[in-house]
Amino acid sequence: MASPTINAASQAGIAETNRSRIMRHLYRNGVSSRAQIATALGLTPAAITKITAQLIEAHAIEETGDLDGKKNRRSIGLALDTAHFHVIGVKFARSLVQIGVFDLTGNQSSLTTLPYVSNDTIGETIATVHSTIEQLLHEDPTIVAIGMAVPGPYLRNNGHTAVVSSMQGWRAINFIDEFANSFTVPVFIEQDARAGVLANSLFDPNSNGEPNLAYYLVGEGVGLGVIDHGRIINGALGTATEIGHVSIDVNGKPCDCGNIGCLECYCSTPAIHQMLIDNGTIVNGADSMSHTEACRALFALAHHGDEAALAMIRTIGTYIGYGCLIIFNTFNPHTIVIGDIVSEAGQPLLDEIKRTVRQRAIPEIYESTTIRLTTMPTDATVLGAAAVAINYLLDHPSDFFSFN
Amino acid sequence: MASPTINAASQAGIAETNRSRIMRHLYRNGVSSRAQIATALGLTPAAITKITAQLIEAHAIEETGDLDGKKNRRSIGLALDTAHFHVIGVKFARSLVQIGVFDLTGNQSSLTTLPYVSNDTIGETIATVHSTIEQLLHEDPTIVAIGMAVPGPYLRNNGHTAVVSSMQGWRAINFIDEFANSFTVPVFIEQDARAGVLANSLFDPNSNGEPNLAYYLVGEGVGLGVIDHGRIINGALGTATEIGHVSIDVNGKPCDCGNIGCLECYCSTPAIHQMLIDNGTIVNGADSMSHTEACRALFALAHHGDEAALAMIRTIGTYIGYGCLIIFNTFNPHTIVIGDIVSEAGQPLLDEIKRTVRQRAIPEIYESTTIRLTTMPTDATVLGAAAVAINYLLDHPSDFFSFN
Repeated sequence: MASPTINAASQAGIAETNRSRIMRHLYRNGVSSRAQIATALGLTPAAITKITAQLIEAHAIEETGDLDGKKNRRSIGLALDTAHFHVIGVKFARSLVQIGVFDLTGNQSSLTTLPYVSNDTIGETIATVHSTIEQLLHEDPTIVAIGMAVPGPYLRNNGHTAVVSSMQGWRAINFIDEFANSFTVPVFIEQDARAGVLANSLFDPNSNGEPNLAYYLVGEGVGLGVIDHGRIINGALGTATEIGHVSIDVNGKPCDCGNIGCLECYCSTPAIHQMLIDNGTIVNGADSMSHTEACRALFALAHHGDEAALAMIRTIGTYIGYGCLIIFNTFNPHTIVIGDIVSEAGQPLLDEIKRTVRQRAIPEIYESTTIRLTTMPTDATVLGAAAVAINYLLDHPSDFFSFN
Repeated sequence: MASPTINAASQAGIAETNRSRIMRHLYRNGVSSRAQIATALGLTPAAITKITAQLIEAHAIEETGDLDGKKNRRSIGLALDTAHFHVIGVKFARSLVQIGVFDLTGNQSSLTTLPYVSNDTIGETIATVHSTIEQLLHEDPTIVAIGMAVPGPYLRNNGHTAVVSSMQGWRAINFIDEFANSFTVPVFIEQDARAGVLANSLFDPNSNGEPNLAYYLVGEGVGLGVIDHGRIINGALGTATEIGHVSIDVNGKPCDCGNIGCLECYCSTPAIHQMLIDNGTIVNGADSMSHTEACRALFALAHHGDEAALAMIRTIGTYIGYGCLIIFNTFNPHTIVIGDIVSEAGQPLLDEIKRTVRQRAIPEIYESTTIRLTTMPTDATVLGAAAVAINYLLDHPSDFFSFN
């Protein structure tokens, strides 16, 4: 079923759409001839000649020489030089801020992890982000854009996050005011799990081209990004797909967001950390560890067969499975990729997630949905931040290049 | 944020998109000149001349004479004759099947309500649907399409509903096999709440053009249809937005779908009916009534100030409010329209829904989201079925008209 309000297809819009489609085709398929692109995209020879000439003149794409050795104009290869353009990705988690430089295929050329952030040092952290980015832009003139991934629910027009469970200090930061016009290159800001689903879509060969993809982030927060039939679901304010604040028990634990029984209260790293402190015996000294350290200690014990640790992994898996059931019934993706710190628990966790889902899901939907752990670096959000910038560049080439 | 996989913009696709955009413009705005359409849609004079000539020749639109009395070619009015084309809408609820004939603006020219359906009479009902539609097509040659609205979760490629709480007999019916190729005009089948959101989008002046709209159906089932930035959310199999089967309590009541604590178990008409039977004193003789009769008896008592009835309305409103909170955190629409039988409880119900949501929602999201009861006929699903057909016609004119 198509849309009741068709998007604009004005002349200028069509030209930009076709430039974008050609860049995406080269991005996904590598070196291609004009004839190959024309066939794949249903464009006329006249159109392809005109648009590729524009793209070449603007240095967005380049000719790479004859494809088959013949002197046939149509067989000259065209390419998007993905190594030539760099982007910065910035991940803002609660206590962790990372800044990476990547090329357009997600190859990382540098990664800076900022000092551990507490509620008191957020201001300092913001200043360091500014100075680090300035330095990177100064050193690398091929950087064309900056992407930022921030915890949701992120109010995209207001520029701030509406609630950050267990670290409300971030709510005071207006990311748009703080960063949007600070640098010589454009800045794009996105909710973290939505950045993650873009990273999976752009960089993971297992997800590449999947039109119905969900990235389910289970870390310091619990988040979700969903691509439905090729489109990111945003919601009116940009706060759709906030699964961490969907209640799994309307009479359950109170959450910082004001709701009761939010999924995030049961399987985020702070929630797991609290379970370990309450338990007291599984991970010794859990109360003096960070959330991530405590969780990794638990996962290591489970990995070595510790029964109590495995039992706790199963409890966590059950809760994450409840989240999958919500995703089934709200977004019905074809693939759910589970990422961030908690996915490091590996196969025993995945087994329990699937067991929970199989038990409660509609069979037809269970059988046609793939649930898997991320095959990207577990903490892919910084790469996701880069993906936000790259995705924007591929969608809006005229914001980066001058076309005549 | 735009999409990571841009939809096709081939030459044929662009031509069809522009025909569709012109038909939608005339549908929404009434008589317009070529110049007005060109301005609104960003099309060149050459394009508008060519496409409108095609549409007129195919009898999809027509010229209506001078708009301003001058002999200026650009000031000739164009119109889509919405009264000239009819569609059939068929609503399949659990026990209620209705067949209506409508024009393109949703004006009803006839409505047939079939005899009350039980699990044993579904086959008979299907036969009556066939014969009724045949008769209507015979009588009215202006009928160009048939839309059907069926309970979700509807597996759109398989053609059957995966679960129908409290009336599983419907699961045996394959709507595609049964109806898709049975008639001289095309048939379009959609999940009921999705049909409802289309009806709201097309026919309700209060929702007209709202790009972020949710229709929350609370009747024999609980369903949801969502338009996000102008696009219907479907999911991979067509079973997205199935809010009735999102759990509000993972330790709660078992549901026919296999899940535990589904929203549908707490506020559908069968659930309310059961509450009335269990209570025993609010509605006398509830156990011999139909679900709808029992609910309407409750609403009538509340309307007359009966305290026990009002208390039960508040309980129902709380559960419906929990559903709104799920909608906030999953789809973040700008407007939630609540419809179907339970919405007949009116203002006391809406007050309680809003109270529940205000208490638990993120304030920024609560303040920018409108929750209201439908202003269309309460049971708008049959009109929604018609909307499915009309929406398809407006999106795919070349399936209905021959263009040179």
